[in-house]
Amino acid sequence: MGLVGNVCVVGLGLIGGSVLRAAAGAGHSVWGTTASAADASAAAADGFDVGTDAAAALRRAAERDALVVLAVPLPSVGDVLRLVTEHAPGCRLTDVVSVKEPVAEAVRRFAPSARYVGGHPMAGTSASGWAAGSAGLFADAAWVVAAEDGGDPSVLREVTALALDCGAHVVPATAAEHDAAVARISHLPHVLAAVLAAVGADGGPLALALAAGSFGDGTRVAGSRVELVRAMCEGNRSALLDAVDDALGRLGAARGSLASTGSLGKTLEAGHAGRLALTEQRAAARTPLRIDLTAPDAMAALRALGSRGGRITALDGAVALAETT
Amino acid sequence: MGLVGNVCVVGLGLIGGSVLRAAAGAGHSVWGTTASAADASAAAADGFDVGTDAAAALRRAAERDALVVLAVPLPSVGDVLRLVTEHAPGCRLTDVVSVKEPVAEAVRRFAPSARYVGGHPMAGTSASGWAAGSAGLFADAAWVVAAEDGGDPSVLREVTALALDCGAHVVPATAAEHDAAVARISHLPHVLAAVLAAVGADGGPLALALAAGSFGDGTRVAGSRVELVRAMCEGNRSALLDAVDDALGRLGAARGSLASTGSLGKTLEAGHAGRLALTEQRAAARTPLRIDLTAPDAMAALRALGSRGGRITALDGAVALAETT
Repeated sequence: MGLVGNVCVVGLGLIGGSVLRAAAGAGHSVWGTTASAADASAAAADGFDVGTDAAAALRRAAERDALVVLAVPLPSVGDVLRLVTEHAPGCRLTDVVSVKEPVAEAVRRFAPSARYVGGHPMAGTSASGWAAGSAGLFADAAWVVAAEDGGDPSVLREVTALALDCGAHVVPATAAEHDAAVARISHLPHVLAAVLAAVGADGGPLALALAAGSFGDGTRVAGSRVELVRAMCEGNRSALLDAVDDALGRLGAARGSLASTGSLGKTLEAGHAGRLALTEQRAAARTPLRIDLTAPDAMAALRALGSRGGRITALDGAVALAETT
Repeated sequence: MGLVGNVCVVGLGLIGGSVLRAAAGAGHSVWGTTASAADASAAAADGFDVGTDAAAALRRAAERDALVVLAVPLPSVGDVLRLVTEHAPGCRLTDVVSVKEPVAEAVRRFAPSARYVGGHPMAGTSASGWAAGSAGLFADAAWVVAAEDGGDPSVLREVTALALDCGAHVVPATAAEHDAAVARISHLPHVLAAVLAAVGADGGPLALALAAGSFGDGTRVAGSRVELVRAMCEGNRSALLDAVDDALGRLGAARGSLASTGSLGKTLEAGHAGRLALTEQRAAARTPLRIDLTAPDAMAALRALGSRGGRITALDGAVALAETT
């Protein structure tokens, strides 16, 4: 990329299927493989070069020096990585799995010679499978790219290029930073939505008849498929436990204050400030910044960008064109 | 109301101002009073018969046998009720305050001779004051009307007629049932949104940069004005404590299960079922039902309707035309 490259996508569900379409649309030479014969047929019928033989797809990746994109659910990652080691051991490798530390650990264990840089596009719908995907799924989405000390800057550059080609902007962060952040802003929301929906429904038909906007908004994601939400949340167990503990602490403090003094002031003020921080960060003016990906401190500079809420929006050769708030 | 009636609205903020407009639009003879000179001027400029002399407005209500609608914040209810006792002691009285037991208690204490039937339209916006109101605010909203044993059926009928004339449908319930229900589906959502927004913002700019739909939806109402949310939630302290305790119990169980077995299955299944109950109740076919408001068991029949998720959609003389799910 930079030049048009070769991309091999393993797993053609919602996310993998969308990466395949978007990368093809951006001019890359793409092929894919999936364990689902139905998804393979559907993708082939849509004119894509796909099959169900992962080993063959990976051998081709090795031959053509392709970027391999791992797009299977977390429980299948180990099996695919064993195939990577067997058929494309030194390949450039990224992934689009929703949790980063467990994937990085699996790569260290099962595919230690792969040149791996993790990724995670923050996009999705409540549907799944090839049919649910689209080339536009990543438009304006954040795509996290792992900026770890010792990471290969040239692979990071290629993963960044792929994400940008898919219409996303790139947010650099370590795997640990990513997992802690998504626990707070993606996985905890699902847990709290489930708690709210259950407590509301416990009020019976009368309560549900009176439900308006606040309950509807607060429970929307409780309508998502349970098995998908479980896989996402349970795969990030350690970071999610920290976020749930923070929520328990704040909710317990609200309970105590309401019971003892009758006030919810501190709870509601903190929540209002948090929501304001979100809207202000989204509306903030952004300052352009250039980060040379070949510089010795590139990874640290990228992490600093991400931790300030910044993003990469384009590439100029080996230089990342970024913006900070 | 059946016949076009006289309506006196005390308090001309978002809700009171909208009731005044909607009742006028439905052909009632309406006048209002507010402690806010600014709201009074604005309402007068819009062509309404309003002032700042509550005593005069209430004397006129007594003379013309008007339905008095109490539309002031909970902390001001006692003061207005003292004026009711002084100037219109036997009047037909309702209210639109967001919590029902504390208002009923205040009526028993400060205006025991008023013929009171409580009400609460489940509508609102994040804005406030006369300017924020509109005649259409209650379109398709639920309007709770208190169906207490010993309540005056003729006043209940008039309050119901006013709510229907404002474009709402009527959900009958006791004050206690109302307060327990709104704690679950209106006040708890605000508390959980505040907790989520604070825990998310604690993740710093990186977390907020990765926030997508689930966090945006789950924190939306944390953007509401804190003083309004405080007044609403803190006024329903006892019922809200029960709802918060239920949420703490469910969130604690989720924490325990995630830590010990790694599973969020029970939490997410219960949440999914709750959300499904909401969407199914909204989509359910409804059966028509007639309730004679002059029958001896009318209040019990109305409460049974509300507890099943039913509603009154029209009046035919002294008969409520209802529908159940």
